[in-house]
Amino acid sequence: MNPLFTLEKTDGRARAATLSTPHGSIQTPIFMPVGTQGSVKSLDPNDLHGLGAQIILGNTYHLYLRPGDEMIARRGGLHRFMRWDKPILTDSGGFQVFSLSALRKITDEGVEFASHIDGSKHMFTPEKVISIQKNLGSDIMMVLDECVPDGADRAYTQKSLKTTTAWAKRCREAYSHGETGNQLMFGIVQGGFFKDLRTQSAAEIMSIPFEGYALGGLSVGESKTEMLDMLEHTTPLLPADRPRYLMGVGAPMDLLNGIKLGVDMFDCVLPTRNARNGTLFTSLGKVNIKRAEYKEDDGPLDPQCSCYTCRNFSRAYLRHLYVAKEILSYRLNTIHNLHFLLDLVRGARQAIFENRFEAYYQQWKGIYPV
Amino acid sequence: MNPLFTLEKTDGRARAATLSTPHGSIQTPIFMPVGTQGSVKSLDPNDLHGLGAQIILGNTYHLYLRPGDEMIARRGGLHRFMRWDKPILTDSGGFQVFSLSALRKITDEGVEFASHIDGSKHMFTPEKVISIQKNLGSDIMMVLDECVPDGADRAYTQKSLKTTTAWAKRCREAYSHGETGNQLMFGIVQGGFFKDLRTQSAAEIMSIPFEGYALGGLSVGESKTEMLDMLEHTTPLLPADRPRYLMGVGAPMDLLNGIKLGVDMFDCVLPTRNARNGTLFTSLGKVNIKRAEYKEDDGPLDPQCSCYTCRNFSRAYLRHLYVAKEILSYRLNTIHNLHFLLDLVRGARQAIFENRFEAYYQQWKGIYPV
Repeated sequence: MNPLFTLEKTDGRARAATLSTPHGSIQTPIFMPVGTQGSVKSLDPNDLHGLGAQIILGNTYHLYLRPGDEMIARRGGLHRFMRWDKPILTDSGGFQVFSLSALRKITDEGVEFASHIDGSKHMFTPEKVISIQKNLGSDIMMVLDECVPDGADRAYTQKSLKTTTAWAKRCREAYSHGETGNQLMFGIVQGGFFKDLRTQSAAEIMSIPFEGYALGGLSVGESKTEMLDMLEHTTPLLPADRPRYLMGVGAPMDLLNGIKLGVDMFDCVLPTRNARNGTLFTSLGKVNIKRAEYKEDDGPLDPQCSCYTCRNFSRAYLRHLYVAKEILSYRLNTIHNLHFLLDLVRGARQAIFENRFEAYYQQWKGIYPV
Repeated sequence: MNPLFTLEKTDGRARAATLSTPHGSIQTPIFMPVGTQGSVKSLDPNDLHGLGAQIILGNTYHLYLRPGDEMIARRGGLHRFMRWDKPILTDSGGFQVFSLSALRKITDEGVEFASHIDGSKHMFTPEKVISIQKNLGSDIMMVLDECVPDGADRAYTQKSLKTTTAWAKRCREAYSHGETGNQLMFGIVQGGFFKDLRTQSAAEIMSIPFEGYALGGLSVGESKTEMLDMLEHTTPLLPADRPRYLMGVGAPMDLLNGIKLGVDMFDCVLPTRNARNGTLFTSLGKVNIKRAEYKEDDGPLDPQCSCYTCRNFSRAYLRHLYVAKEILSYRLNTIHNLHFLLDLVRGARQAIFENRFEAYYQQWKGIYPV
């Protein structure tokens, strides 16, 4: 019995549960909107409450560089700084170091990198990223890992796996649950696209007592089939009494595939980034709002949707705002896309309670084939 | 007795009144936020209601070019298109033709111009701009005028004045109050920076029965002293039983100077544009939020202010959002600046009712010397 994580219902491998954090409970499965720099782009905290967001994600890499984790600590932590009083998960910064910064150099000690803002040199070690996340005061910290790129060979993946396990141990040693802040810490399973290495990584990471376990290194450019295959292999290896978090995944069917296999938590910039690019998820499939066919369309973006955008504005107006590059376009589109994904996952939770998750899955599979 | 405009109280030359429009009454003095392309930049209608905005402005030039006034008419008009159910004033497009477009050519017939979007050729005549404003369905239409640039000589100004008067007559002939839509129409006094020409223009425009009268061609680059001098000369010439609108003016003391001289209505992009540039009006004077001194400032932007931004966020957070170019920065800053100006004008109205407008004026003059 894990006092932090209560499994309430299963339906096949899909699970409905409650996770306790210092800033309140989260009902899973859950999608976490990404607030990279202390703001979910274009939204304010009232908007997020209105959408029913239960937890958001902050990026350690970005916040460390600007405005700085120590500066945020002096403001009373990230929650107080951005006026968000519900749970926050912070990543370790590792993924951004590998995807955004230049001149990175990995050693056993950590990873050296140059800021994407001003080129300044920095070093992330396991101890450093935990110290940053302590300063941010997130509810859930992530360990430092190396996200193996798609296409990495076995030798590279094996070496990287060793580093990831060693760093995970050092992160756990740097902070124990119950210390000041009572922050949770999740370990991350890597192992690239080699099943035996995934098995090995899961065993090594699970040997360290974390409050939750994440799957990293997926959705990095591989095919959907490869991702699903690896997800199907790895998820059952994770302990049933801990939350499972699939990192960086946010397309509708990716969420439902993950839930079907027993994943509890997801995050991705996809819905917010797509929103700003005019690509919107609806109950009838994807809508590209800039298309000429919507020019005189007086209907709502999604007739099934109850979000502020769909309750008030026409496709014609949303198209106009997008074409005219109005700031309101980003906001209304983001409200809709996040509402859609949060609602999709709320619906999945409900379906699990009612033993009809498979039907729910198939219904959406008909609308979003991939 | 004018059934559309009820003068409720005067204090010196300052006036408090109520103006009736098809979409409801406006309590003056009033500042009108500008929603150029069918959106007050970064805000949605809920935000505007929350700020207590009573009327907003739409730009004929922009809406005609994109998405097109006929397209908006097919959507049921601008109110329905942008979901704003309170009054809207539309300008005539003349000012934008002169400030934004290239290749303009003025004749007695109208003004030919090239779109700033795609260079396409267009012609605005008095009849055309009224037809556009009928399509938009605004509560208050403005006549086509030529806004004489600062520095224009007497001969040019005199010739332009003649055109402006002729165009005003043709606008009035193109639409009578009481026709479909029951839209109001305001005439515009020009005359550059020549007092006798201002007097002549006022007499000519007042000879045409409009529902209100505006002062145009001010705040076009002249000194504050020149503007005030011309305002002081012209305002008393306007009829007491009609609303008076000073176009394109929005700095705090410009509003109070106008109100002091008997102006009822104002519009300007200044508060919204300044907000996006990080320049914020407060009860302690202007704040440039990007300055390093605010980096660790946990206080609200304006301790006297009750807007959403000031009730929730610190100067440190607002500075971070600005520096990080977060979209939320535009929104929170715009909410504050509009709240500030709307509150300033609400305070002026209250002071007029309480016979203390002069004290109110002097109090603000101490904070905003110019």
